[in-house]
Amino acid sequence: MALVWEQVVVDAADPGALADWWAEALGWTLVSEDPDEYEIRPAPDRLPGLLFLRVPEAKAGKNRLHLDFRPDDQAAEVDRLIVLGARRADIGQGEQSWVVLADPEGNEFCVLGGRPAG
Amino acid sequence: MALVWEQVVVDAADPGALADWWAEALGWTLVSEDPDEYEIRPAPDRLPGLLFLRVPEAKAGKNRLHLDFRPDDQAAEVDRLIVLGARRADIGQGEQSWVVLADPEGNEFCVLGGRPAG
Repeated sequence: MALVWEQVVVDAADPGALADWWAEALGWTLVSEDPDEYEIRPAPDRLPGLLFLRVPEAKAGKNRLHLDFRPDDQAAEVDRLIVLGARRADIGQGEQSWVVLADPEGNEFCVLGGRPAG
Repeated sequence: MALVWEQVVVDAADPGALADWWAEALGWTLVSEDPDEYEIRPAPDRLPGLLFLRVPEAKAGKNRLHLDFRPDDQAAEVDRLIVLGARRADIGQGEQSWVVLADPEGNEFCVLGGRPAG
């Protein structure tokens, strides 16, 4: 393959804390840590991962890219994420089958409707 | 698994054109198309994919999230992507092992150094 998708890089004010948060949220593993870069993956050899990179600038406005996750049980996952420290985000989406949350640094992400049974 | 990473959503002015561009760039497959949403995946059943979503607002500033790809041959891939319509992007990165490009709508992404041989 000519290009392998290695990771999504997420600019962060506190990359270590944000990597820890997402590792807990997703059940992923920390695979590298550096004072300015922390990478998590679903498993050590599974790509793509998420790499949290320290940047000086603050988040401004809604992110142009965001992550979508498919839950087994949407309501249970949303509750779990909010207990972990996510908050509900209103980006003008109105009533939808998905729920928009924001991580501790305000990055929007979606918890989609649950998988159809069977 | 409680949450499956389904896709990265990329806000777009022309989601059909941008999905076609990325499908060509990555050798991926278009798996769904709607006037406002186009999704591509590495293979029809392989996640995560990229979903291009029509939004009214323009891109503003550097994206807070971006994609990183690992090439077999960095120089060859950069040349190929530029021929396809990517441009080099200067986000103050200086001299690095990776090359920062931008897609036709200006979304920054990186072509990392090639994989070590052997």
